[in-house]
Amino acid sequence: MTWNIYLSGEIHSDWREQIMAGATEAGLPASFSAPVTHHEASDDVGVAILGEEPDKFWHDHKGAQINAIRTRTLIGKADIVVVRFGEKYKQWNAAFDAGYAAALGKPLIILHQDEHAHALKEVDAAALAVARTPDQVVSILRYVIDDALPGYTDTADPAQ
Amino acid sequence: MTWNIYLSGEIHSDWREQIMAGATEAGLPASFSAPVTHHEASDDVGVAILGEEPDKFWHDHKGAQINAIRTRTLIGKADIVVVRFGEKYKQWNAAFDAGYAAALGKPLIILHQDEHAHALKEVDAAALAVARTPDQVVSILRYVIDDALPGYTDTADPAQ
Amino acid sequence: MTWNIYLSGEIHSDWREQIMAGATEAGLPASFSAPVTHHEASDDVGVAILGEEPDKFWHDHKGAQINAIRTRTLIGKADIVVVRFGEKYKQWNAAFDAGYAAALGKPLIILHQDEHAHALKEVDAAALAVARTPDQVVSILRYVIDDALPGYTDTADPAQ
Amino acid sequence: MTWNIYLSGEIHSDWREQIMAGATEAGLPASFSAPVTHHEASDDVGVAILGEEPDKFWHDHKGAQINAIRTRTLIGKADIVVVRFGEKYKQWNAAFDAGYAAALGKPLIILHQDEHAHALKEVDAAALAVARTPDQVVSILRYVIDDALPGYTDTADPAQ
Amino acid sequence: MTWNIYLSGEIHSDWREQIMAGATEAGLPASFSAPVTHHEASDDVGVAILGEEPDKFWHDHKGAQINAIRTRTLIGKADIVVVRFGEKYKQWNAAFDAGYAAALGKPLIILHQDEHAHALKEVDAAALAVARTPDQVVSILRYVIDDALPGYTDTADPAQ
Amino acid sequence: MTWNIYLSGEIHSDWREQIMAGATEAGLPASFSAPVTHHEASDDVGVAILGEEPDKFWHDHKGAQINAIRTRTLIGKADIVVVRFGEKYKQWNAAFDAGYAAALGKPLIILHQDEHAHALKEVDAAALAVARTPDQVVSILRYVIDDALPGYTDTADPAQ
Amino acid sequence: MTWNIYLSGEIHSDWREQIMAGATEAGLPASFSAPVTHHEASDDVGVAILGEEPDKFWHDHKGAQINAIRTRTLIGKADIVVVRFGEKYKQWNAAFDAGYAAALGKPLIILHQDEHAHALKEVDAAALAVARTPDQVVSILRYVIDDALPGYTDTADPAQ
Amino acid sequence: MTWNIYLSGEIHSDWREQIMAGATEAGLPASFSAPVTHHEASDDVGVAILGEEPDKFWHDHKGAQINAIRTRTLIGKADIVVVRFGEKYKQWNAAFDAGYAAALGKPLIILHQDEHAHALKEVDAAALAVARTPDQVVSILRYVIDDALPGYTDTADPAQ
Repeated sequence: MTWNIYLSGEIHSDWREQIMAGATEAGLPASFSAPVTHHEASDDVGVAILGEEPDKFWHDHKGAQINAIRTRTLIGKADIVVVRFGEKYKQWNAAFDAGYAAALGKPLIILHQDEHAHALKEVDAAALAVARTPDQVVSILRYVIDDALPGYTDTADPAQ
Repeated sequence: MTWNIYLSGEIHSDWREQIMAGATEAGLPASFSAPVTHHEASDDVGVAILGEEPDKFWHDHKGAQINAIRTRTLIGKADIVVVRFGEKYKQWNAAFDAGYAAALGKPLIILHQDEHAHALKEVDAAALAVARTPDQVVSILRYVIDDALPGYTDTADPAQ
Repeated sequence: MTWNIYLSGEIHSDWREQIMAGATEAGLPASFSAPVTHHEASDDVGVAILGEEPDKFWHDHKGAQINAIRTRTLIGKADIVVVRFGEKYKQWNAAFDAGYAAALGKPLIILHQDEHAHALKEVDAAALAVARTPDQVVSILRYVIDDALPGYTDTADPAQ
Repeated sequence: MTWNIYLSGEIHSDWREQIMAGATEAGLPASFSAPVTHHEASDDVGVAILGEEPDKFWHDHKGAQINAIRTRTLIGKADIVVVRFGEKYKQWNAAFDAGYAAALGKPLIILHQDEHAHALKEVDAAALAVARTPDQVVSILRYVIDDALPGYTDTADPAQ
Repeated sequence: MTWNIYLSGEIHSDWREQIMAGATEAGLPASFSAPVTHHEASDDVGVAILGEEPDKFWHDHKGAQINAIRTRTLIGKADIVVVRFGEKYKQWNAAFDAGYAAALGKPLIILHQDEHAHALKEVDAAALAVARTPDQVVSILRYVIDDALPGYTDTADPAQ
Repeated sequence: MTWNIYLSGEIHSDWREQIMAGATEAGLPASFSAPVTHHEASDDVGVAILGEEPDKFWHDHKGAQINAIRTRTLIGKADIVVVRFGEKYKQWNAAFDAGYAAALGKPLIILHQDEHAHALKEVDAAALAVARTPDQVVSILRYVIDDALPGYTDTADPAQ
Repeated sequence: MTWNIYLSGEIHSDWREQIMAGATEAGLPASFSAPVTHHEASDDVGVAILGEEPDKFWHDHKGAQINAIRTRTLIGKADIVVVRFGEKYKQWNAAFDAGYAAALGKPLIILHQDEHAHALKEVDAAALAVARTPDQVVSILRYVIDDALPGYTDTADPAQ
Repeated sequence: MTWNIYLSGEIHSDWREQIMAGATEAGLPASFSAPVTHHEASDDVGVAILGEEPDKFWHDHKGAQINAIRTRTLIGKADIVVVRFGEKYKQWNAAFDAGYAAALGKPLIILHQDEHAHALKEVDAAALAVARTPDQVVSILRYVIDDALPGYTDTADPAQ
């Protein structure tokens, strides 16, 4: 079985690449997906394809709906959804994705720094893990997918 | 049929009271519910009932999970979910609720000021109405529940 | 048990009133709902409540989405969905409602004249009854809800 | 992941072929399906296989039900449903498919000319994109499936 | 809570009346429903309401589909489905109802004589109780709904 | 896409083999499954594996439950369910499977001789096709899966 | 709205009565249900109603299946499921109920003493609250259903 | 089709290995999964990856939630769930998994010794087979997946 992991949220650092590199290095049978992370493309896709809108609200609306074709489909197919909250911006789409995934019963891993813990308590309360670093997410994936926990499973296990 | 309306989001103004008063005045068969809107109660409920936690993370966690008993149940029973985003704070729980409701297929009405439109575009894209004022929400409810649109349905309608 | 009957489709004749009158006369425990049947209100509701749109597409879009709050909720709560196709117009919303109800597993009764039979064959194929007159729909409701079939159940039935 | 795209609606022009050719040219991992587009076969399949019917209604019914085995199964397996409305005919089956797909939560792309916009407003209101040309649909698929938006993603993106 | 009990199957004896009388006598908060049990009405309802069919297959088909509006709706609303198999006839509709209810996860009680046990083994294997008499069904309902088991709960129970 | 076809019902003739041979000959991308068709194995499997039962009811019960592991799983994975009713026996398991598949929304093809039409009317009313011969089922599969209808699609089709 | 609370688990102390008394005293709109808590009745119900079984396994099986009619129905209708683990016995049915409720997405409150915490960690991990006393459960219900948290909501709240 | 079999429960003997070896020997197209069976890893995974917790309850909680990412996902993907109860310990997680799988409609095979039969009666009542040995489970899998029942299907079967 290949595990489908959806990586939602912050698009201004390379956390997705770190997780994917770690998973590759560990040889995990995992397939990763994400929203379109090109900020301008994601903002403008509606009008770029379907025609200009003089009103910014509809400019945004057309783009956001096309993005939803991708994001809702991939969340729906995911076995695990990881949502990262960064230091800046409102990131309401990240919290929306977390709620969306929670209602579908998807296991959630939330990734954020300590200073956001109080503001994210309702989101964290719906998660099965709250991590601080991409490395921790990789460790969780290694354990969950591959039974591997350094210091434990790399020593002899008589029951296996 | 009584319509169940869940009012999620900002808890620092009286928008819920305005909507409920408007619905009452209009005589709508609607029943409203909401999260616990007492900020401190909502923060402390976990430790107040189940015992102190020295670690703030678990303090928050215990409270947020008890709040989830209420919020997820009421969203699950709602016919319409209204989510208001205010001027301040991260309000990730509001966006989480919107995503949660969207995944359950609940009709969403989002209520916010223009300056948040771009940051909320993914949330708005999942909504069936984006309003600026509680009065507009009341008007939508009057129309949706009661067929009433001032200037239209209060004049003669030969087909009815 | 009260049966919820949703009456979708054509809004230019009094077929809904005929069915409701027939059901009342028969004393059926049935509750009827419908889309907003005031044509102009239904067209303009979006801009009337949420503000003007210079572009007719968005004028229509805002209204149609508010109408969807009503129609999808009521179809979702219906026990039986009746969809009438009239003589004029495209009536794509009627066919959309039929498809929507079919996917939810709602029993469908389609009401139309013979000349539309070929064009409606896919819609009829999803229905449990295809009727020509409101009276026939009333007769079906009487039978389904109340066991009553004139000429049969009004004579003695030894097994009951 | 291969994306399953169902192409519903009008069968008298080559719009399906245009979309499939565009997707192939773009190298998209997409698999396309559609109703049987041979008009006469689709009309007669019931009686051709299961025996003649003197009554045209049952002739149509037997065929439409066999077509439904195909269409409902493929819509149920689709990740995206595209529905095209042409210039002619009632096309109620297209609107039925749109409603059916909407109730299943499938992302909808509607394809039609401007003159049908008002009549299709309820259908468009359920869609995540409303396009005018097959090329636009291909562009949406390229973006949604492959992150590709000409003029944006073909320039350097430091976050990827 | 009122329990909804659907009584499917054999229509040639008064087993439904016996169960309902027993439930009434026990004062159970139960509401009973059933298919139309007037055999001729049930056979002819399609043509009686919607017009004659020269072909017996379509005569039957129109009636069976109208009956399905009733039976599938009531099974869908039932908390418990009781299916009785009598001594005569194929009774395929009874077995169909049992399968239909099983797939919906409804608790099934099957009622039949010993001589049918082998032929009904797959049906019985999906049931939570297999009874021989209407009295046994009443006893099960009394226990399940009302905690009452003669010889046990009518004696003192220190834990209650 | 490979279509999964479940072949339920009568086990005393070679109708399954005929359908599978026809599908193979037509080169259809179809995968067939069925209950265990070895009558004695199917009767005795429970006691053969899990130990003897003096009471025939439990002998049957243990076997029927193990058979259900197979049949319910395969019906749940099927795209199309074909149910054949033969000339003999009660065949309640066949009707049960039909009801089970219907409640899951599986497209049903029922296969039986004319003399059973009246007794099977409720089952047929839930089907999308009622066939008399295995050849007709093959023809339906060829059309549904492969667009092929002899006399139609083997002649030129300008729209394809 | 009346909240349905299902009280599963240990039957040898009066914890249910304590919770119900507390809820009544607080005037909560709550309705409570539970398994049959008469131990002997619950063990013997199958044979008492449906006839003796010489084999204890089937004696137990018949009873446990009848109990399941009650417990699965009531858990399915519950808004909140409380599961108490006592000091003695295996109590596998309690853990089974917890898993059953969790898979249905029901909010879970687990009630147990500290010494069982490690053995119950997987069960607790699926819960939204882990309480030690019936009083704590009452406090949670008062907060969740009625917004009431002593020391907080009984002081002035300007936002309400 | 490859069958996915989830092996839940007791981790102190080699029953999983016996079942997998038997399935391999029989050449069954089956894929097996299980919880992490390294006891210490399973206990400590939360703190090992996400940081120490001074309170044992949260130590357990963090680990149990990470384990849930694995177990709930794999149970959700399983075609058959086997749950073994051993001689020792409370094994509430095994019973929880059984309840979880039952609510998802997964076919359950329970594996335990006779002395636990009474305590497990509610769990057994939800199962489609109750086995005593891993060999019996292999025999069930061979029959269910491969039609093979020694002494029956290895002799000539005229209907196949």
